[in-house]
Amino acid sequence: MRALHELEKKMMKVRNHLSGKLLFGKAGDIRDALCFHALTSRAGLSTARQNFVATGSYSDKIVAPYSVYKGKAALSVSPILPTFTKLDSGAIKVDRRGVMLLKFFPAVGERKYDWEKRQLFALSATEVGSMISLGPKDSCEFFHDPSMQSSNAGQVRKSLSIKPHADGTGYFVSLSVVNNILKTNDRVTVPVTSAEFAVMRTAFSFALPHIMGWDRYTNQLPASIVENRSKVVPQLLDSEWDK
Amino acid sequence: MRALHELEKKMMKVRNHLSGKLLFGKAGDIRDALCFHALTSRAGLSTARQNFVATGSYSDKIVAPYSVYKGKAALSVSPILPTFTKLDSGAIKVDRRGVMLLKFFPAVGERKYDWEKRQLFALSATEVGSMISLGPKDSCEFFHDPSMQSSNAGQVRKSLSIKPHADGTGYFVSLSVVNNILKTNDRVTVPVTSAEFAVMRTAFSFALPHIMGWDRYTNQLPASIVENRSKVVPQLLDSEWDK
Amino acid sequence: MRALHELEKKMMKVRNHLSGKLLFGKAGDIRDALCFHALTSRAGLSTARQNFVATGSYSDKIVAPYSVYKGKAALSVSPILPTFTKLDSGAIKVDRRGVMLLKFFPAVGERKYDWEKRQLFALSATEVGSMISLGPKDSCEFFHDPSMQSSNAGQVRKSLSIKPHADGTGYFVSLSVVNNILKTNDRVTVPVTSAEFAVMRTAFSFALPHIMGWDRYTNQLPASIVENRSKVVPQLLDSEWDK
Amino acid sequence: MRALHELEKKMMKVRNHLSGKLLFGKAGDIRDALCFHALTSRAGLSTARQNFVATGSYSDKIVAPYSVYKGKAALSVSPILPTFTKLDSGAIKVDRRGVMLLKFFPAVGERKYDWEKRQLFALSATEVGSMISLGPKDSCEFFHDPSMQSSNAGQVRKSLSIKPHADGTGYFVSLSVVNNILKTNDRVTVPVTSAEFAVMRTAFSFALPHIMGWDRYTNQLPASIVENRSKVVPQLLDSEWDK
Repeated sequence: MRALHELEKKMMKVRNHLSGKLLFGKAGDIRDALCFHALTSRAGLSTARQNFVATGSYSDKIVAPYSVYKGKAALSVSPILPTFTKLDSGAIKVDRRGVMLLKFFPAVGERKYDWEKRQLFALSATEVGSMISLGPKDSCEFFHDPSMQSSNAGQVRKSLSIKPHADGTGYFVSLSVVNNILKTNDRVTVPVTSAEFAVMRTAFSFALPHIMGWDRYTNQLPASIVENRSKVVPQLLDSEWDK
Repeated sequence: MRALHELEKKMMKVRNHLSGKLLFGKAGDIRDALCFHALTSRAGLSTARQNFVATGSYSDKIVAPYSVYKGKAALSVSPILPTFTKLDSGAIKVDRRGVMLLKFFPAVGERKYDWEKRQLFALSATEVGSMISLGPKDSCEFFHDPSMQSSNAGQVRKSLSIKPHADGTGYFVSLSVVNNILKTNDRVTVPVTSAEFAVMRTAFSFALPHIMGWDRYTNQLPASIVENRSKVVPQLLDSEWDK
Repeated sequence: MRALHELEKKMMKVRNHLSGKLLFGKAGDIRDALCFHALTSRAGLSTARQNFVATGSYSDKIVAPYSVYKGKAALSVSPILPTFTKLDSGAIKVDRRGVMLLKFFPAVGERKYDWEKRQLFALSATEVGSMISLGPKDSCEFFHDPSMQSSNAGQVRKSLSIKPHADGTGYFVSLSVVNNILKTNDRVTVPVTSAEFAVMRTAFSFALPHIMGWDRYTNQLPASIVENRSKVVPQLLDSEWDK
Repeated sequence: MRALHELEKKMMKVRNHLSGKLLFGKAGDIRDALCFHALTSRAGLSTARQNFVATGSYSDKIVAPYSVYKGKAALSVSPILPTFTKLDSGAIKVDRRGVMLLKFFPAVGERKYDWEKRQLFALSATEVGSMISLGPKDSCEFFHDPSMQSSNAGQVRKSLSIKPHADGTGYFVSLSVVNNILKTNDRVTVPVTSAEFAVMRTAFSFALPHIMGWDRYTNQLPASIVENRSKVVPQLLDSEWDK
């Protein structure tokens, strides 16, 4: 039997209470990402420490980022899966949402990148939806406030912008971090070719159902389990007609 | 060993006997969803109580909806997998078709939604096909009669419509429920941005083979099973030439 | 332990020796499906009886077709997985290719279809590729000779054609079977809406890697297997540089 | 228990240190595939012998290529999965990147191809991204140096070009190998129809997350594992806010 480990770790907590600032029209209705045609969105994300008990080992951790190394900076992307909680009813519920994590590393020499100065940006499912549906001439921008809903709200502002190359051969992906506490203002830009963006689009589309937890909705039970059941029962449902 | 639980539960029963009303041309041939370019479809779905024996525990139930929260209402979507029956021959047959379940919740305050007043609409595989192939200017509408083929047929009518924003930045998703028995007439509308719709399109495309039961057609057997077979035998088939 | 069953069964055998007849241009090079823009293709498929030993039970058989029921006929589609053979080296090799099986049933009354008079057509991977890349104005046609490479070659000819509706709202899918031995000439047509075709396109795209056997190329080993290996070894490969 | 086999085998080693030569603009930033609209890319790949211990049996090897047989040559494609290493921390890290392996065989007679004279070309994830996003009028070209970073650097040059048919019905896929040591200059071209390319596009899109190792990011744990955990813990993460 495995020992339980009590871990204390800063964990990202993506809140769904989005504080979208309306850019135009349809006030009060659209409080979410409006990214398609050169629009911008705002998503408030807060920080939280969180204790949790790891009942599994670390073997769950997979390290397989997709990375593009350019002259001034590198960009590395990988999905972070959601966590699940088992309810008293036995149901498995998504606890913390998954995200697509972007890491930026500034270059400090020929093919050398500074791990210590990395900057992170975590895309929500809807922001991933924006990215994978970007046309070759489209741009978008996302705003995050890591300290939202804390006393430091508004002190640190991160924005990620994706803008097309003039000749349609790719995009500039830029992360800007304005920290009013440390009085810093960092900006890092990585040019991404169409081919690299195609890899991201395909890999993000593959990963999206996984970060949403939808890959748990599956009929692919091992054969041995199937055979032991005379009738395979799916998740119970609130039917369309239950009221 | 697990105890068997006898459950009585209202279950949605999607009938395949669609009562499509012809809108134009090709009479008698097209009795199904005609959704592409601002057309409408009619699907008759009936309600039924159904007893069944759950041989598994509740752990099968997954709670991972994709939700969009807007000013007047929220929309939450999640797939419902099909059920399977094991035939005497040993074959596994789809029993009740899977659906994509849409739940609408009216707002009752700042970021508060009324769970009690939720309205449901279950999309069939073909209706999901309509949604995921909608162009940015396209609209579609589906009609369901929850009481079809019962004495209450025609008393309750539900219709779901998806209409594009004038500026192409998303869709209005509206559910209308006319209940002639209760003399009620409810309508709830949720604006969905292009980014949110892209998430739905990608997640629905991922889920479609699963609600059809096609994810059971797979070669991904565990290695241990593969190694115990000198030859892996697929499902037997009525060949193209068997007559 | 399971008993072995010796089964004799007519099995479809899709041969890769395609006898494409050139329709125009590029003679000698293109002997395969040429379907995109109103072109036609010819694929020769032969029939064969084949004995095989089923070392598994029938539980492998999945019955989950996608069916469209129309006034004059119904069309039902489902994937047929490939079979695999284990080589002496331990490698798993595709033996018989998978196909997408189309079954047509003529109507014999209101919502009644004649199972006895069904006609089958099995699409190869390349023919599936044609179908899923059809534009709304495109058409294609495939020719099969079930008796190819036997003494009856040329006696039975099957052709499947897919033609767009004039208004772009779907396709007509027609199967023609000319049997010179029985002196029969059957033709069955099923109109398929854009929404239904979108379901097929999505489900066929999902199924294509499975009928090719590519879903066997996967890193998704159960965790228990992963943990027992200090280093996970992929399939050995003829490298790009091995000569 | 299985015996360990010590294997010595030439293995392809795809290095990520790409030596892209800039073709125009954005110097120093784009050192990767620039393929989209008739551009070319350069990727340096080196050769290496490598010993490794196979702790599994050969059953991992899958043989399921997608092949097109034409008059002058045949082309066969199949994915090569990445290898993984288990770190001391327990994390699973991609060791050698996966690739899409293209094999060309010259014809030596009617439907006979010379296995001995095969030429290989291994596409990286980014090069696969170029291929799957090619429009019907687009072309691209990749350059590999198998001896890169060895004393033979520059002595052998391989280039793969994909050019559209004039009438948009497919592509010409050509591999050129110039070997200055052996004084050889080989070129093999396989015409690929739109339908065949659609199969490749779909199968490559399916395989891309697998050759990247992203299929390891999945929530699809066997039910038995899920039930033994009160809380399923995902990979630990460097949060967006951890500094």
